[in-house]
This record gives sequence, C-alpha cells and structure tokens, in this order.
Amino acid sequence: MAKELVVAIVGATGAVGSQMKEQLIKRKFPIKHIKFLASARSAGKEIEFNNQKYIIEEATPEAFEGVDVAFFSAGGSVSAKLAPEAAKRGAVVIDNTSHFRMHPEVPLVVPEVNREDLAKHNGIIANPNCSTIQMVVALQPISEKFGLSKVVVSTYQAVSGSGISAIEELREQSAQWEKGKDVEANILPAKSDKKHYPIARNVIPQIDVFTDNGFTYEEMKMINETKKIMHSPELSVAATCVRVPVVSGHSESVYIEVEQDATKQDIFEVLRNAPGVVLQDDITQQEYPMPIYVEGEDPVYVGRIRQDLDNKKGFHLWVVSDNLLKGAALNSVQIAEAMLEDNLL
Amino acid sequence: MAKELVVAIVGATGAVGSQMKEQLIKRKFPIKHIKFLASARSAGKEIEFNNQKYIIEEATPEAFEGVDVAFFSAGGSVSAKLAPEAAKRGAVVIDNTSHFRMHPEVPLVVPEVNREDLAKHNGIIANPNCSTIQMVVALQPISEKFGLSKVVVSTYQAVSGSGISAIEELREQSAQWEKGKDVEANILPAKSDKKHYPIARNVIPQIDVFTDNGFTYEEMKMINETKKIMHSPELSVAATCVRVPVVSGHSESVYIEVEQDATKQDIFEVLRNAPGVVLQDDITQQEYPMPIYVEGEDPVYVGRIRQDLDNKKGFHLWVVSDNLLKGAALNSVQIAEAMLEDNLL
Repeated sequence: MAKELVVAIVGATGAVGSQMKEQLIKRKFPIKHIKFLASARSAGKEIEFNNQKYIIEEATPEAFEGVDVAFFSAGGSVSAKLAPEAAKRGAVVIDNTSHFRMHPEVPLVVPEVNREDLAKHNGIIANPNCSTIQMVVALQPISEKFGLSKVVVSTYQAVSGSGISAIEELREQSAQWEKGKDVEANILPAKSDKKHYPIARNVIPQIDVFTDNGFTYEEMKMINETKKIMHSPELSVAATCVRVPVVSGHSESVYIEVEQDATKQDIFEVLRNAPGVVLQDDITQQEYPMPIYVEGEDPVYVGRIRQDLDNKKGFHLWVVSDNLLKGAALNSVQIAEAMLEDNLL
Repeated sequence: MAKELVVAIVGATGAVGSQMKEQLIKRKFPIKHIKFLASARSAGKEIEFNNQKYIIEEATPEAFEGVDVAFFSAGGSVSAKLAPEAAKRGAVVIDNTSHFRMHPEVPLVVPEVNREDLAKHNGIIANPNCSTIQMVVALQPISEKFGLSKVVVSTYQAVSGSGISAIEELREQSAQWEKGKDVEANILPAKSDKKHYPIARNVIPQIDVFTDNGFTYEEMKMINETKKIMHSPELSVAATCVRVPVVSGHSESVYIEVEQDATKQDIFEVLRNAPGVVLQDDITQQEYPMPIYVEGEDPVYVGRIRQDLDNKKGFHLWVVSDNLLKGAALNSVQIAEAMLEDNLL
C-alpha cells in the first residue's frame, strides 16, 4: 500500500487555506490523519474537511509531534515562530508566507521549474508568491531553450490575493455603483497600511507596502523570487504590481528578451509542450486567457504571444492563472506530491 | 474684440462628443455660432448646449459652408467621407477618429508635444488615440532632456473608451455579482468583432480588433502614433493594451530606457515642470495616480517613478489620465485653442 501521511494545516479558514483543503481532497493526497491548527482564539471551533467535522486545535509547538507534512498559510509571524518548531519535530513545512522565501537554506520551489531544489531542504520549503509562480512556469521552458536576459512584468492582480475580506469589499463596493469613488474602503491596497482606496471601478498601483527603493514588497518578491527559483541571479527582472477589480485570477503582461534567436513559432512550440502550461493563443478566434475564465482551473494559461517589432529577441506574453490555486494551494500540494515521489517525505 | 468662430460638432451625442460640448463651455472657447451635425437618422432631434436647445442638422458636405472649425467624433467612416468636404469648404477639421492619423499630410498633434506641426496642416488635424496622448505628454519632457530609446507599455484602459454602451454594460454586469462570468456581454472587447466577453470582474487583453502581426489596432496605434507625434521614427515602442472594469481613466505601466544618464530625482524634476503633467508620487503617503480619482480632471498624472534595479538608464512610470478629456475632447479643444493663438484659425 502507498505511503499515507499525517498532515497538519495551519490557517485553514483563510482564502488560501480553504483552497488547500479542496486541493488535498481533489488530488487524493494520501492522508492517514489530518489536523487543523490555529491560534488559541480559534481553537475549539469546528471545521469541515471531506464531509467530516474536525475540531481546530491550538497551534503549539507540541501540536506538530508526529506530523509528516505541515502546510502553513496563517501569516508570516505565525510561520516565523512555528515553522522551525514543526521542522524540529520532524515535520516538513510547506510555507505559503513570504517569511522564509529568500532564506538561503530554504528551497523556494515551483515543481515544474526547480523540483531538484526540494532535496536540499532542512525541514522548511517555501511556496513562492502567487504572481511569481505563474510567471516562472511560463518563463522556465523559454529560458531553458533560448536563454533569458530580461523580464519586465506589469501585473493585473485579483483581490483574493488580499484574502476573503478583500473579496467581500469588492462585492460590496460593486453593489454601490452610484457612489463611485465614495464607497467605503478598509482593506486595499494593504490592510496594515495607512490609507485605503476603493477597488471597484478602480485599479491600485500598490500591492503590499513600499520598500525603501520605491518598489513595493510585492514587486520585490517577483524580482527576487524569480531569480532564486530560476537559479538566475544575473537575470534582469522588473515588476510593477497593480490590483484590479477581479475576484480571482492574476494576469500578467510580460516582456522578455531571450539570448538565442527565436521566432514566435518557436515560443509557441516550447509553451505548447511545457509542463503546467496551457497555450491559449488564437487571435483569429479571439482566444486568449482571461481571469474570469481561469477561476478554479489548475494550469498557467499563456496567450497574446508576439515578437517585438523592434527587437527580434524581444517577446510579449500574457500570462493568467488562478492565484489561489497554482499561485498558492495547488503549488503547495504539488510540492508535497513531488517530495513523496522523490522519497523526501 | 477677440476673434469668434463658427463651430461644428459631428457626433455630439457620443461619449467623446458630450465631453467636447462641456470642454468648449468650460474653457470659454470663443464661439460665434455652433451647429450640431449627424446622420440623416438623427437630424431634426434636439440637443442642448450651454442651456440652449439646438436642432441637429444632417451632416452633408454643404453643412460645412461657413464653418471655421469642425470637431469630428462620429467614427472613422464619417470622417473619411466628410472631413475632406469640410476642409474643401474652408473649415479646419479636428478629427478624433483614427482615419487620418497616420496620413503623412495630416498633423497628429498633442499641443504640449508637437504644437509646431499644426502649421503644416492642409485642413485636417488628427487628434491621437487616447492612450497615446497621455503617454507622450509624460514622455516628451523626458525625451527632450535625456533622449529616449525604448518604451514598453502595458495599459489598463477604461470602458468609456468603447462608448456609452460599454459603460452601461459594465454597470449592468456589476449589478449581477452572483452571475460571475455568466453575465450578458454584447459590446466588449470590440463591438464589431465576433465574440464578446464580460468586463465586470475581468480584464480583457484585446482593445479594437487584431492586425496581421498579432498586435491589436489599439496597440499599433500606440506604437505608430507615438513615433509620429514625438518625431522619433527610430524609437522602439511596444504596447500591450488591456481593458479593465473602470469607467473612465486610462492607466499605463510604462517602462522606458533613456539615452543619457539620469537619476530618479532628475526624472522627478523634469516631470514636475512639464506642461500638462501633475507629478503625484509620494509613496510615504501612498500618493500615486488612480483612475477613479482622475475622472473629470484635465492633467496627465504620473507617479510610481522608479529607476530600474538592473539598468541605470531604465525607468518605470505609472501614467493616468481621463481618456475622455486629455485623451480626447480636451486635447481636441486645446488643438483649436493653439491654432487660434498661432493665427492658424
């Protein structure tokens, strides 16, 4: 009989955590036993999983005793405190927060791109930022075949990346058409930041808070994580991250420059055969990816592929994926699956 | 007494035409007499202007007799047929459609950028594409000071660019939250194209129809018009144009490469003193332009200015303006004002 694992989920009631539960069920992850962990405040509450009711337990260090794999998506400070405790007790942590992503000892993994890094883990694997994951899934096969020197990305990111409360806020604001910019705003662009702006009928060029260099943390995540995942410290990467009034599904307008000569047909060919990618590019039929149609879908969709008109080594791509799935929960479960297959769990 | 002109408006009931009327009033354009022209179907209907009622006349060639300046925004085929007739009768046509924009004998003008081209007119002046206008207003002062070699732009364009019916469609779709992607869609991405997609809770990477090279007409407009307006045939320009669920106000994520060394402070300084530009860039106060706040405002707003982290000559800008105002009606009226000042009318 195939190996079955003891699984813990920390932060199961959030937007990502809910999808994590669904992915484990949908993908028939081999679970011997599952436990749901949260802060003392939520402990004792009921949670449903696969038509069974579970009682949420408090996420103490001891709660990870006997756990094989622990999925964390309860915020960076929870991961900072408890992921090392879980790892110390023999669990492999797959962490959805940004806390450990750039730590040199922590693999940052998208299985289609750098699965080999999983073997180097020290108990913690980091799941990359949602907008980074979908981009590197599209770029890696191009990079392998033609080399990659430059990436300039502008994002169109869904509100679900800011959690369930942001979805609710978009819904409420959308219902108040006549109020225009005078709707109430409490969540976006970043709950912890000083000012909040409406997202309905608007786009906000700020995701997460600002860093000292003028880029936001979200932009710096895309820049730094892309280089780490693709093992390309020299790759030139720039990002402008923008929130749009979409529920789920991040879109990205990506300009790249490759190192070897390539044609548009070459890029088509590479992406048609790329793992995790669905090529959706037939302009004669107005076929291209759009966020409203990728909600609930696993793949990374790529379309609008064009060779630059001035630079033969420049290409433009439009990349769309469900930020809660491949961008978060699905990638986390795929990491666990890959580790199982590679006898790392 | 200052000169007063006989003005004609062709297409006064559309999204741009309505703004045209408002701009003429607001800016106190010196009108001796105004007439409203439309197809035979609309002729005879009433239209209000400056609290007076006018009867719409049929737009025949003869209707332009005695007209000094005619503003056209009734579609390319109307301009193709009637603009030369108006010009033949001594009117100066300021045409908001794309029909004459790339004609070598027709100046394509943004007064802040290439006002001098107005003198070369042969009866027709073309008003550029909305997304092009706001970008060149921001880029021209940078280009003048530091030179410009490359532009890569991704747009976030409002539905009002597709007319009043597109605004109405977004409103209706927004009211049907629970239907998600199953709302009715008849207008976007392009009324004349085969398929239509929802815009509420979605972004659509198609504006106008596709050209043979895989870029859309909207993208090719940004590429070709930018080079023409800026007198820079060698400038490398690429565009990805995307419709977003915003009523009015186009946003643009623009990556540029300059020719001379420049710092972020240099770019700030240039834009702070640039005609038609408002620098709105204070990340410590989360100050940056957003479309919902530029509705009804004249300037082109620029923020999120960053020097590229890998290329010292690379800069990232976020440019937002009201597409119906500076992007259309305001620029048209400014063209007429400049011509009056320069004794060309």
